Amino acid sequence: MRAAIGIDLGGTKLSGALVDETGKIRFQRTHPTEAHLGTDSVVASMAALARLMDEDGRAAGFTVVGVGVGAPGPLDPKTGVVFAMPNLGPGWKRYPLRGGLEKALGKKVHVENDANAAMQGEHWIGAAAGSSDAVMLTLGTGVGGGIVTAGLLIRGVRGAGGELGHIVVEDPTTVKCPCGGRGCLEQFASGTGVGRLAVAAVAGGGKGALALLGRAPTSHDVLDAAQAGDALALTVLERAGRALGVGLVSIVHSLNPEVIVIGGGFGAAAFDRVVPVADKELRSRALEASVEGLRIVPATLGNDAGVIGAARSVLLGA
Amino acid sequence: MRAAIGIDLGGTKLSGALVDETGKIRFQRTHPTEAHLGTDSVVASMAALARLMDEDGRAAGFTVVGVGVGAPGPLDPKTGVVFAMPNLGPGWKRYPLRGGLEKALGKKVHVENDANAAMQGEHWIGAAAGSSDAVMLTLGTGVGGGIVTAGLLIRGVRGAGGELGHIVVEDPTTVKCPCGGRGCLEQFASGTGVGRLAVAAVAGGGKGALALLGRAPTSHDVLDAAQAGDALALTVLERAGRALGVGLVSIVHSLNPEVIVIGGGFGAAAFDRVVPVADKELRSRALEASVEGLRIVPATLGNDAGVIGAARSVLLGA
Repeated sequence: MRAAIGIDLGGTKLSGALVDETGKIRFQRTHPTEAHLGTDSVVASMAALARLMDEDGRAAGFTVVGVGVGAPGPLDPKTGVVFAMPNLGPGWKRYPLRGGLEKALGKKVHVENDANAAMQGEHWIGAAAGSSDAVMLTLGTGVGGGIVTAGLLIRGVRGAGGELGHIVVEDPTTVKCPCGGRGCLEQFASGTGVGRLAVAAVAGGGKGALALLGRAPTSHDVLDAAQAGDALALTVLERAGRALGVGLVSIVHSLNPEVIVIGGGFGAAAFDRVVPVADKELRSRALEASVEGLRIVPATLGNDAGVIGAARSVLLGA
Repeated sequence: MRAAIGIDLGGTKLSGALVDETGKIRFQRTHPTEAHLGTDSVVASMAALARLMDEDGRAAGFTVVGVGVGAPGPLDPKTGVVFAMPNLGPGWKRYPLRGGLEKALGKKVHVENDANAAMQGEHWIGAAAGSSDAVMLTLGTGVGGGIVTAGLLIRGVRGAGGELGHIVVEDPTTVKCPCGGRGCLEQFASGTGVGRLAVAAVAGGGKGALALLGRAPTSHDVLDAAQAGDALALTVLERAGRALGVGLVSIVHSLNPEVIVIGGGFGAAAFDRVVPVADKELRSRALEASVEGLRIVPATLGNDAGVIGAARSVLLGA
């Protein structure tokens, strides 16, 4: 049976999986990224990981047809060049990731933005399976996005499509974002954004568990406090939910998706508190034609979506 | 030679064109819409117009293969059902436009949202020709949008995609939009929006030509006054341009287009004053990867874009 290797290139670890033609993971391995050692070293680690997975696969009777990589930055799958990966260091600016890895490995490689790879995974065998028009928002430290329309991933002219964390959801003259913009979705609906909102709420005189921590509250603190019924924490999550809802307004008006998949660590932990608020905000604002039949659902593949999606492009074509 | 009839269904007139396989208009005819007479009457007028154009075409040696209609509302090209066309009256809610017209005509009909049809026209032989990833904004009384990615028009699951006039560009708690939302692009970057901004500027104590009119200023007044160097009018257009730029931020981050086409009556008249401001705002905010190589250009087909695009779907497939 044919199989492909999916690798998720993260800031702290390389996660590899051997994925068969049905999307099932057969083996998994993890290496540290050690990004501080530089691009050559990271690429060599990825190649070493891929070789081990290849051996795993062949020993189990699979024909390993190639390697798909999900990487944390805008990149062009057509050229294989990463535009930048600031979380991994400055050396990755315009780095030919596909070329470097193919040379090290002697195997066909496909590279994809990690959020787009997660969308591909969820679209293949996860929460968006069977849907021609889907959007995924990965709410984690930041906010990533992926878009499928008419069954195909939107990459845009240089592969930078789907950067939905940086659509504008608030007064565009206020909260700054590292992207260079202001009022971005990521500043409100990510773990970092919710931590920021909580710090601001405490600084603004808010009382309760978050004020009593004696340190800057994180999104985990906010979720814990909300679970215990803390009013300030509930207000902060309500605020995050409304901002997410405003972001969804722009998304559904642009793309008219059938399903919106919410993934990421913060997205999973906060789904029940944030998404109903967002859904209500969305439906109170949007054109009826744009939300009719729309479903907003949690991701089902968790952290595996990226490796599955990266492998999918190798197995089924990009 | 094969040809198709394109009809633009407008609030006041029906514009028909016979379009050949190269996108060239061979004949044009116009009828009044007379929307107050109701759906049956309007469909009968469209059928009559199409029959006359068919005769024109056959007399000139063309084989007329079908009729494409651009209509001013969200609609589903797969089913041919219009979701609603508030400008034409309440009778069009969930109206089977394709079915009605095919029955009246005995010819194959394709229906498309008018802004999407304009995008198709500009993508075929206009300002976006040759580009795989393009966005069109039609800045007129309202703001319409159309999106092409990887060469294909984005319609979304029910055909309501591309409603870019209703992406959020400002504080989402303030300016109301008829769509049900607040802070929509249409409230700032349309003719109506600029008139609204001018009225607010005068009400806020602004001096100059707009304040001396003795009536509510329109976007035409604003453009005229700006042409004469009026400071308040220039401020209003600057404000419109910045809002457009914020909208473009969300658009380029989502879609990474190669070209953005600005059309519509207000868009054509205000291009030189509004687009440079928007472009500057966009590039000061957006991720470098999302704007590299991006061009923002005026539409080249004017009011013909819609009929050409509607005919294109019949001639070349939707």
